[in-house]
Amino acid sequence: MDKKVKIAIDLMGGENSPDKNLDGIELFIKRNKDLDDYFFYLFGNEDLINEKIKKKSLKNFKIFDTKIVVSDDLPALSALKKGKDSSMWKSIESQNSLDVDVSLSAGNTGVLLVMSKMILKTLEDVDKPALAGLWPNKKGMNVVLDLGANVNCSEKNLIDFSEMGAALYQSLFPNEKAKVALLNIGSEEIKGTELLKGTYAKLKKLDEMGDFKFYGYIEGNHITDGNCNVIVTDGFTGNVALKTAEGTANFLTDNLKQALSSNIVSKLSSALSYFALKKFKNKLDPRKYNGAIFLGLKGPVVKSHGSTDALGFSYSLDVCYKIAKGQMINKIKFNLGHIKNINNEQK
Amino acid sequence: MDKKVKIAIDLMGGENSPDKNLDGIELFIKRNKDLDDYFFYLFGNEDLINEKIKKKSLKNFKIFDTKIVVSDDLPALSALKKGKDSSMWKSIESQNSLDVDVSLSAGNTGVLLVMSKMILKTLEDVDKPALAGLWPNKKGMNVVLDLGANVNCSEKNLIDFSEMGAALYQSLFPNEKAKVALLNIGSEEIKGTELLKGTYAKLKKLDEMGDFKFYGYIEGNHITDGNCNVIVTDGFTGNVALKTAEGTANFLTDNLKQALSSNIVSKLSSALSYFALKKFKNKLDPRKYNGAIFLGLKGPVVKSHGSTDALGFSYSLDVCYKIAKGQMINKIKFNLGHIKNINNEQK
Repeated sequence: MDKKVKIAIDLMGGENSPDKNLDGIELFIKRNKDLDDYFFYLFGNEDLINEKIKKKSLKNFKIFDTKIVVSDDLPALSALKKGKDSSMWKSIESQNSLDVDVSLSAGNTGVLLVMSKMILKTLEDVDKPALAGLWPNKKGMNVVLDLGANVNCSEKNLIDFSEMGAALYQSLFPNEKAKVALLNIGSEEIKGTELLKGTYAKLKKLDEMGDFKFYGYIEGNHITDGNCNVIVTDGFTGNVALKTAEGTANFLTDNLKQALSSNIVSKLSSALSYFALKKFKNKLDPRKYNGAIFLGLKGPVVKSHGSTDALGFSYSLDVCYKIAKGQMINKIKFNLGHIKNINNEQK
Repeated sequence: MDKKVKIAIDLMGGENSPDKNLDGIELFIKRNKDLDDYFFYLFGNEDLINEKIKKKSLKNFKIFDTKIVVSDDLPALSALKKGKDSSMWKSIESQNSLDVDVSLSAGNTGVLLVMSKMILKTLEDVDKPALAGLWPNKKGMNVVLDLGANVNCSEKNLIDFSEMGAALYQSLFPNEKAKVALLNIGSEEIKGTELLKGTYAKLKKLDEMGDFKFYGYIEGNHITDGNCNVIVTDGFTGNVALKTAEGTANFLTDNLKQALSSNIVSKLSSALSYFALKKFKNKLDPRKYNGAIFLGLKGPVVKSHGSTDALGFSYSLDVCYKIAKGQMINKIKFNLGHIKNINNEQK
């Protein structure tokens, strides 16, 4: 029985592809020297790739020739017309045709989502797939969803997201318990929209099923506290929260840089504190938690940030490896079963 | 004719009151030495206040004795029962009884909002008052609203918020043009909820009326860019965005502090860069933009952060002075007239 984790990679998506993608694979291999239980299915222009990998030390891979590349700025519908021969399409399709475990692309998010839905189909009982991402906190890492796939959500959607987010979290961090929280504008039970109050009541019941601990509501200023690790919200709020956090982080670091280079004394001191600041940057490097995950399809698809570099791409490969190894899809199916039980109880 | 700006101050609200409040008034006076066109109506326990101000150099004030204090953790309804003799109630009421221009409190936000609505009433044509706040950007300061007063908003609400936010901005920054943007999850015209698309179309029309320039949609990561300065959103999204930004800022500065005190070299260097970092902290000090503003009532009410200190409280007095001096309420009424015109045109 072949127990290798099979990862399909779209080599042609994102900025500086396929170089960034291939360099990222090399970095993944170097960083995970002790692992050998994976195999890469690489999709892209075979001649180009063969030329590029001459000087690289890759292993455990096979190249699948594709000539079409999905453009970054093409609307989803146009991309789909000629997209069925693209590296993106073929890499997702390999989950059906080649029994691959997970697909990775740094290409156009909208197109990737539409293609993934078409090829893999939504899991039974899931109305809407969600986009989940990683978000650092004081004690480790949060999973946050939905980050923008669904602008309008129902109670059922948010409950699905909770179960799927918990399954994702436990695939990534097998030794930790998933602690789910609902993003709201207050922590008291009576706060927020009717949608949130209804969801709250049902999540309390699901807490008893043991898939996750339900933490209750969380406010935006506590996302990074680390008291919970799966943050659930609708795609509009999640997208605004994520981008606002990004903007705030950039604003602060820009101001910090300015302050540290404003005169000769501060320049000298920042040279001295180079290593301290490097440690700071290193710990919070967004490339280390690169990789958004489409949840709710019959197979997992990971989206690397289009503008990340090889290091960022390599970390999204870590995500792929872990969710395949952690049997995320089976965990999701198992968890979703509990929602059915809750609903039957109520009938 | 008395042209003094009359500011009513609840001295008993917030942490460390009335000391923080009185110290804040003193700081305001010191910082605005060249001004003398204001008068403070101070509400609180007169004996206590007289005792406290012995050693202070206050001027232009009169004390109004009140014995009741609105507790910080009381629900709004309970607070209202005995609240009509409180420093909070009396300070708002003085806008009606003593022709005061603006009221300031650092007390319980929920109670302050309910009391303000009861006493001052909502402006004609405004369905829902909003809570606006200041948010720094690369070029200066944004006004952001709603920050949590209204969880569910209609097109009409968001358009009111735009006009009121623009009036607030131009009272605070009389030499700048208000540039309004709608917070969304993409910048293209087709993105977002139906609510936002409808609002977008109407704001485009109002742009032609000249109260403000309509910038279009803005994403969370561009709030701090400074290309627009009035950011409009519903109270749920605004509250999540604000708190997420706060949380991100705290998370980053905590990590920075840790990095800079992790070993002897970095300790030495951070001592050297003390002044640079101080400048950084100074510029982004949240106390300097303390003060949320209730918009849409017949008089302006400013809410200082309950946990801020005297410096923070003094800056919320700056906000009070500017919106009274800038005739914000008249500006709002003028702007709201244009919404009527737009609606009549469409009939």
